[in-house]
Formats: sequence, structure tokens, C-alpha cells
Amino acid sequence: MAIKKIESKDEFKSFVEKIEKGRDYKRPLAFGICRIDRGQKNREKVLQAIYPFVNWNENFGSAAVFIEALRESGENIDFTSSEQLFDITDAFIINAISAFNPYLDEAKGDAHKNVQVLKELAKIVECEDLDDSFRILFLFKDDAPQCVESVYIKLYALSLGKAELRSVNLNGAFGILHNVAWFGNEPFELDWLRENEIELKLNGAYPEIESVDKFPRYLQHIIPADNTRILDSAKVRMGAQLHPGTTVMPGASYINFNAGTTGAVMVEGRISSSAIVGSGSDVGGGASILGVLSGTNGNPVSIGENVLLGANSVTGIPLGDGCIVDAGIAILEGTKVAISRAELEKIKEVNPFWDVNIEDENIFKGVELAGKNGIHFRQNSMTGQIMAMRSRREVKLNVELH
Amino acid sequence: MAIKKIESKDEFKSFVEKIEKGRDYKRPLAFGICRIDRGQKNREKVLQAIYPFVNWNENFGSAAVFIEALRESGENIDFTSSEQLFDITDAFIINAISAFNPYLDEAKGDAHKNVQVLKELAKIVECEDLDDSFRILFLFKDDAPQCVESVYIKLYALSLGKAELRSVNLNGAFGILHNVAWFGNEPFELDWLRENEIELKLNGAYPEIESVDKFPRYLQHIIPADNTRILDSAKVRMGAQLHPGTTVMPGASYINFNAGTTGAVMVEGRISSSAIVGSGSDVGGGASILGVLSGTNGNPVSIGENVLLGANSVTGIPLGDGCIVDAGIAILEGTKVAISRAELEKIKEVNPFWDVNIEDENIFKGVELAGKNGIHFRQNSMTGQIMAMRSRREVKLNVELH
Amino acid sequence: MAIKKIESKDEFKSFVEKIEKGRDYKRPLAFGICRIDRGQKNREKVLQAIYPFVNWNENFGSAAVFIEALRESGENIDFTSSEQLFDITDAFIINAISAFNPYLDEAKGDAHKNVQVLKELAKIVECEDLDDSFRILFLFKDDAPQCVESVYIKLYALSLGKAELRSVNLNGAFGILHNVAWFGNEPFELDWLRENEIELKLNGAYPEIESVDKFPRYLQHIIPADNTRILDSAKVRMGAQLHPGTTVMPGASYINFNAGTTGAVMVEGRISSSAIVGSGSDVGGGASILGVLSGTNGNPVSIGENVLLGANSVTGIPLGDGCIVDAGIAILEGTKVAISRAELEKIKEVNPFWDVNIEDENIFKGVELAGKNGIHFRQNSMTGQIMAMRSRREVKLNVELH
Repeated sequence: MAIKKIESKDEFKSFVEKIEKGRDYKRPLAFGICRIDRGQKNREKVLQAIYPFVNWNENFGSAAVFIEALRESGENIDFTSSEQLFDITDAFIINAISAFNPYLDEAKGDAHKNVQVLKELAKIVECEDLDDSFRILFLFKDDAPQCVESVYIKLYALSLGKAELRSVNLNGAFGILHNVAWFGNEPFELDWLRENEIELKLNGAYPEIESVDKFPRYLQHIIPADNTRILDSAKVRMGAQLHPGTTVMPGASYINFNAGTTGAVMVEGRISSSAIVGSGSDVGGGASILGVLSGTNGNPVSIGENVLLGANSVTGIPLGDGCIVDAGIAILEGTKVAISRAELEKIKEVNPFWDVNIEDENIFKGVELAGKNGIHFRQNSMTGQIMAMRSRREVKLNVELH
Repeated sequence: MAIKKIESKDEFKSFVEKIEKGRDYKRPLAFGICRIDRGQKNREKVLQAIYPFVNWNENFGSAAVFIEALRESGENIDFTSSEQLFDITDAFIINAISAFNPYLDEAKGDAHKNVQVLKELAKIVECEDLDDSFRILFLFKDDAPQCVESVYIKLYALSLGKAELRSVNLNGAFGILHNVAWFGNEPFELDWLRENEIELKLNGAYPEIESVDKFPRYLQHIIPADNTRILDSAKVRMGAQLHPGTTVMPGASYINFNAGTTGAVMVEGRISSSAIVGSGSDVGGGASILGVLSGTNGNPVSIGENVLLGANSVTGIPLGDGCIVDAGIAILEGTKVAISRAELEKIKEVNPFWDVNIEDENIFKGVELAGKNGIHFRQNSMTGQIMAMRSRREVKLNVELH
Repeated sequence: MAIKKIESKDEFKSFVEKIEKGRDYKRPLAFGICRIDRGQKNREKVLQAIYPFVNWNENFGSAAVFIEALRESGENIDFTSSEQLFDITDAFIINAISAFNPYLDEAKGDAHKNVQVLKELAKIVECEDLDDSFRILFLFKDDAPQCVESVYIKLYALSLGKAELRSVNLNGAFGILHNVAWFGNEPFELDWLRENEIELKLNGAYPEIESVDKFPRYLQHIIPADNTRILDSAKVRMGAQLHPGTTVMPGASYINFNAGTTGAVMVEGRISSSAIVGSGSDVGGGASILGVLSGTNGNPVSIGENVLLGANSVTGIPLGDGCIVDAGIAILEGTKVAISRAELEKIKEVNPFWDVNIEDENIFKGVELAGKNGIHFRQNSMTGQIMAMRSRREVKLNVELH
């Protein structure tokens, strides 16, 4: 069977509608065509999936075409499963190209990225074998990923900002990805290196391995916004999300997967997995924002807008807007923090919904101050006491809430 | 017109003298020939300027020759402007070679670097087109830079140690440089990557981007002294200055542009833009020296000689010689520091010009101790109080001052 | 002279026995064949030695064959010296191949690595000159190394886990290794770069230098275990030892040579030269473990099992098992630490051999708590006092000791 060449955009629309009305048909949550890197020793091992374009809750017409092109190529799609993965074949390409015919010419620049992917595949297939190197993945539900391609499409969705941080199911991802040696964007099986170590070394051909990890780096797959800067690719893992305007310095910074920024942020410290930092904030040199696996009792830390985390500070609680943590101090869930009556009154002003008793001397545990706006955490240098006051940073309260 | 071949060094001298006596002639503050990397999409965008040799307040004879060679090639030089930039042409090369004729043979090794540059250009032009890839820049005043080549020559002057840190006008440099993806010393426009992402990725040819930044790294342009070590090129930005004997470890260190060392220094922490560290000092693991943009109220921090900044300490005030900041503590402008009478007397001995009242208990703000010698900053582990005493580190006082 | 082809494994055994019984013969502590990188300018300078396989207190049969093959090729071996180094020649290869004849076929995979090295050399010699690129080193005593090849074999022994950390004599190693620019696993003399800077830069061929150091990186020479992860190759120096299961994150971490882990450890901080961390421990983000050159009075720091060093903490004393150092605090030899009677009693339970007087209030110097199990170091956030209590982490006491 084959899809017959579609001659107009109207015909294309009817074609898609008909597919989408099909019995059992289900629009995918996400889909994409990827190039895969296979194991050097064990070709069945997929070491990496490279997506030139990821669809996340969008482009359902293209999804319908791809699904139909697969069916016409003899594949069955199970819409009840959470994900479905297929090899790209010549037949699939021919079928999909026939369907996309009205869009082939205008597919360039930012327009019709899926068609562009298809056109490039058609070019490749003219010159060489597809060589089992290309696959198409559909996610129908955001269940725990079942294959490498699925983990990658989710990491892409996070890093491209198409899915919100913490919103994607990555359970078991570490078990699915292989630990490999990365060299020039290419993953190598460690066992292959072992097997070829003698030959490579004696011939001066041993590769210059940049990392050994299950994850690639963000910059191996993602093109950041024009005003985003990452001064060292090692500092941002694939799956991190950097809002445009974010700068990541090379000192002691690190942004793990499923962590990042939701506005322009200066990052000179660590944003652990699950931590999120808001617009205008500054993660000072060596500052640590703890993650769910590192001292927050499993509570993910969100840092609000316009917050300053001083150099070498440690933050284990969520902070609201306009907060300051002074250089070198640690505010954890159990840290006791003293606040005077006058300062607590000022802090309350920028936290109108905080139901707090105000005493002459107020001692809070860190966790009790979680998410509050406008707090400046300090250590009294004469007494060593950790205390808090109203920060001098502006807190913009949502007027509609008052 | 053309410069006629000069046959002797005497003739060369007269030739230069005549040029320098010309009406309006002005010796340039700096000049150099550079290779430029142009945008892949927009060839008018200069992404990087690579100087094989930079002249900074020196080699005025070569400057005169280059200026004359430009004029003979039909260019006008405006000596009243702060900077002048010209494309290198075949005519320029021929003219300059004619003038430098008496030096052509001996231009090798450390001798006559400008002539060596010219000879190499002559070699290139024999085999291929110059291809708009080479330019010559003159700085007549240290005004705010007007072009990428000008920013680069100033960064070179700093990194080569030809200009003192903080002495060069880099106002607006961030606005002039383009934010690009760096891959193997080559800058790529992000837009070009976007336009070619699909093709590059599907063909397994996506470049391994090492950083996305306006600045390159120091080691992309600068050859350090034999006894200088930089264990990770990401840790030193172009425009930093490393005195011979400096070692930069790869943990949490970073040296920004317009920052660095004026003697052999062990760097395991951060030297922010505008900060300077003196000979024999040790910036401990994770130690932060704040910059004018990060908590010093705009006051640049100089650290004296033979100073120890402990691991994970934070310093926001200038320090004199022989100081110690203990591991893990932060000394900022507002930090209150207690000093006993006995210790203050000892500290005063190594700060003979410090006009200070000595009480039984003395409390200073950090800023009041700025630049003082021989202070050991500590936190009393029983009371949490930040205190200072005379450090055990030697302070060499300039005898002539006593 | 030549070694005659050995036809059986029995004959091989007799051959080895005869060699080992020879007058003055001494089994080497270590030996290996390496490829060397020579200086670009000064070919006599060895910049790096690459060992495809290192023998450390093992494979004495192969050693005997290699020694005999050298003697048959006209070399004299001085068994009284601490190390002996020879060029690999065609004659050596032919002799050794003759001796290893019974093992040639089965030398593959994990079997007979020395024979595999030899077979690869025989392959190379068929196609091209050996070009003075290969050498064989024997260590007869662990004295201070005398040559680059000797330093490297010792670094390999540490990094491969064949020698225990701190057990190898590396005195003077810094004086033997050359400071070079590393580019794609290849070391370059800085002087060669200087000499070729103009040509390289003008032709757009200047190499992308990754580091300037005497040491290469661990991953340039060592293939880690399948469950070991190193997210940034710059973070682990050659000569470090990583026990399988160790993860090194890219934030503020660093593991120097002669330092590392003896079990699965999460490393997000610095392990200075001479420091060792035990199984199940966690070196938090930015945590510093001081080395003998950085504040421990020359006492190397061992961290026990199941220890947590909090983010940005600093540890300058050895710790036993199950300890915690809270985020942001520094415990050095001189740090005073208060422990209540109740807590000290609980701590003593997991340190049965600690002969300590228990008072109502106990003040210890850090050094007095060195190596003790189950201590949680904290700073009281109300008083600034550094105090300790029994940690909640399990301490497994060796039952046989009770």
C-alpha cells in the first residue's frame, strides 16, 4: 500500500481529519524522528537519540501523517500503550513525502520543521542506506519511559522549554540510559574501549574522552537563545531548562537535568535536580541550591524572582521573591532563624497571606519560612546567630490578590 | 603609488622618521594585524579577531610603515579618531614588504614579530585569496572600543600583560561582541546553527559546542609562561591576566576578564572581574573574591602578597599583605570584626601609617580594615564571633617608607 | 643472538624458570611497554607516556621474557638500579614474539595483555618504522622516579587501582614532568607553540588547547568501571583513584592525583592530593577535603564510610565512619568543638577504644576528634557555637574487635 500524492492543502486537511477520526486513533502527547547512535560492540544498544525537532502537544497533523505513513508501510500502532517506537524505512519516507506534498516547497526556516526533517531524510536515503539509524517515537501517555528514545524526547521537552520543569515522568530513566564515554558528541561503549585499548593507545589514536555519563550535555543537543550564555558546556546537563537571558559561569556552577531557570538568571552556583530559580535572581559563586536527593527531605526547592544567593551560601528551603541569603551561610529546613518584631512586621507586609504570630523575639525553623517573600537571611557577626530581616530588594505583590 | 624597496636599515630609519614628522601624524597607542572569523550567515558580522602579535605602546617604526603602506594603497588614516580599522590588501602587503626589506631575513624567533606576520601574510597571499579575512587595527586613544577588533586588542593587551589590569577602557565591550557558539576555537552564529540544525543532526555532523559566550577563553589566544598552569581552559576568560607561576586548578576556580594575578599565585577559587591577587598568595578551593558587580559596592578588590584565602571563604574587601581569611567565613564591607587591644597593637606594627585608636575591645566594619596588612580573620568557634588577630604570615614593609 | 621459537607452554615455563634463576636476576615491581610523545621542538623531551597495559607486582613470566628479549637484542639490564628504561626495537619484538609463541593465538580479550601489546607492536612494525616511539620500563624498587615513563607507570598504578593511594613514591615527579599544552590527548611544548604562533594563527590552525599542565587527565589514560561516572574529564587528574561506583559531578568537584575513593562515593566537592574517601560517603557540592599542602599540618585526611560532607563544608581532619559535617561549616585541626555529656556518651558507644573523659561540657580541638566514628558536626544557629553530637548515620563496628 502507499499514500497517494496529496495535491492541495485542503486535500491535506481532509486527509488528516480522516485519520484522526479513525477508530482508536489518539493524538500523541509527543512525537519526533531521531537519529540514534548504536553501540560499537552491541549494535542493539541505543546509546543516544538525537532529535532535530521535537513535537510536544503540538503539530497533530504531522503526527497523523506519520502514523498513517507507518501503517501504510505495514506497521501497527498501539494507541493504548504509553509509547511506540518504529524504525524509519524507505517506504515510510515515500509515504510521508506524498502526504506532505503541498508543504514541501515552503518547508524551510521556521516553517514545517517536521517536513524539513522528512526532506532531509529523503536526501540521505538517496545517497546512502538508512542503516537502521533513524527512528520515530510517539508518546501517548507520560508514563515512565520504556526506551532510550523516550527518555531523550522528555529531556528535550524540558530543555527546549516545551514541558515545564518537574512536570515530566522520568522514573527509571537512569536504568534505561547506558553509561558511556563521550567523545566529540559521540557516545562510546566502555567495553568497546576496553577491547580496543591496546590498539588505540599504541597507534596514538585513543579518543579524548570528555565525560563518562549516562546523560549528554545540554549543548550537545540544544541551541540556546541568543541572549543565553553557557561558558562551559560541562556545566549544564541535558534535561536542564535555561530561560532566555540566563548566564551560566564556569566557576562552581552546575545545572542538573529537570532543574533550571524560569527567567533571566545569573548562575555561578549549583542548581540541583528539581530546583528552579526565578527571573532576575542571582545564584552567587559557589552557592548551592539543594535538590530532593541532597538534604531537603524530598521537598523540591523553588527560588522566587529577584533573589540573591550570596557566594558559597547553601539554600535548602524554597524562597519567595526578593530574598537574600548572605554569603557563606546555610539555611536548611532545620536551621533556627531569629527575627525581631520590627523586621517580622516588615516581612509580613510583603507576605499578606502569612498567618503568623508576631512576638518580641521570634524564632523560626527554616522550613517555616519556606516560600516567604522579602527575607534577608544573615549571620550576626558578633554573636554568630542566624537571623532574618526585611531585605532591601523589591517584592512585587500581585495587586489582584489584595 | 607604491613604497619603493628600502635597501638598508639607515634608509629604513629615515623613512620612518619622515613618516612620523608628517603633518597630523600620531603614534598609535596600539596596533596589530588580525585574522577575523566572520559570521556563517551574516558575513558582515565579525565573530572573533585573532592577533598573532599585538603592539601596545611599542614598535612605532612598524606602525609608521604600516600606516604609510595603507596610504600608498589608497587609504586615509584619521589620526583624530580613537581607532581606525582597515582590510589587509595585496597592495598593503607589497608596500610593507618593500619597506621592511632590510629586516626580512632576520625576522624570526623573537625578532621583528610584525615583519614575521607580514611575511606569513605574503606566503598566504601566494597560495590563496586573502578573502577579506585579515585586518589591521590602530588605537590612537583608549576610548570605548568601537569594533570587535578593538575589544580584542584590548583583551590581548591585558592577557599578554602589556596593559595593567583595570587600566584599559572596555566600556560597551559586551554590546560590541556577539554571543556565539564556540567549537574548536571557531565561533558559530547561533542563527546559523538553528538554520542547519536538522541537516547537521540527521547527518551526525552536529558540532560539539564547548561554550556559548561573547568572549573566547584565554587559552584560545594566549600562550602562558612556561611555569604557568591552567588545568581547565574553561576556567580563564580571554582578558584575564596571569602572572608567570600562576596555577589555576579545575575545581571551583574562575578568573574573569580584567582580573588576575600580579605574581605567582595558586588559584583554586574565583577572581571576579576587576579583582587582582598579589604574588605568593593562595586563593583556596572555592574561595570567592567578589567583583565590582557582586557585592563590593563598586570598589574593586585587590589582594596583597602572601595572602591565604581559606577554602570556601568569601572576601569582599581589599586585603593588604600577609593576611589570612579562614576557611568558610565571609568578610564583606559591612561585616563587624572584633579585635583585642593586644592583637590590634601587633597589627598596627605592620600598618605604620594606619591612624587607629586602640581600645580594649575594638569593633571594625570590614571596610575599615580594607587594605590593611597582616590580619588574620577568624570566626570564634565557641561564640560565633568574627574576630581578627595578627596573622603569622610575614609582612615585608617597604623600609624606605619608615 | 636470538630467542628461538618456543613450541609449548611447558617449554615456555622452563624458559621463564631458567631466566628467573639467572645470577642477579630480580623480579620487577612493575613493568610495561609504552608509547611516548616526544617534544615537537626538542625530540629528546618525553612529554607523555601512554601505557596500554601496566604490570604491577604481577605477570613475572612476561617480565622474564621481556628482559631476556632485551638481552638477546644486546641490552644490559642493571637489576640493582631502581628503574631501567629501553627503546623498543625490531629485534626485541622478534625475540619476544618467539618466546610467547605458545600464547599468541589465545592472547585476546582479557587474556595475556602483554602478548597482545607485543602483537600490536609487531603489526605496527610491519607497516611503518617504530620511530623511537616505544619504550619498555622496569621498576625494581619504588624509589623516587627518574624519568617521565616512571612517573607515568606509577600514576597508572594508582589510577588503575593496582597500587594503594599514598603507597607509591612520587617524590620529585613535578620536577620530571614537563609543563605542556594539551590538545586532543596530545601534549605540545609551549615553546613550539610560541615559535609557530604567527603561522598557526594567521592560517586559522591554532590548536584548541584544553589545559596547560604537567599532568594529563585521568580519562586520557584510564577506562573507568561501568558504574563509574565522571561528568567532566577536567575534574579528575591522572593519578587519582576512583573505586567502581564513584560519581564525579561537574560543579565544584576535583580529585587530584594520589587521592580518591575506596568505595562507591558521590563526589561534588574537592578531594585534595593525599585525601581518601570511603564507601557510601557523599562529598557534597563545593565541600573541600584539605590535603597535606593545604591546611592539615601535613596529616593526610581519610574520610570513613557512610560519611556526609555537607555542601560547602570544609574538612581538615580525618573522619571515621558515619560522620556528618553540616553544610557551610569548617572543621579544622584547631577548631574547638563542644559536646554535651549525653552526646559524648553516645559517640563513645561507636568508638569503643576511645579513651576519653566525659564531663558535663566537653570541649575538643578538631584534631582530638580525628578519625572518630559517628560524629555529627554542627554550628548552633542561635549561638554560633561549633558543636558535635552523635550522628544518625549507622556505624558498623567490626564485631570481632568487641
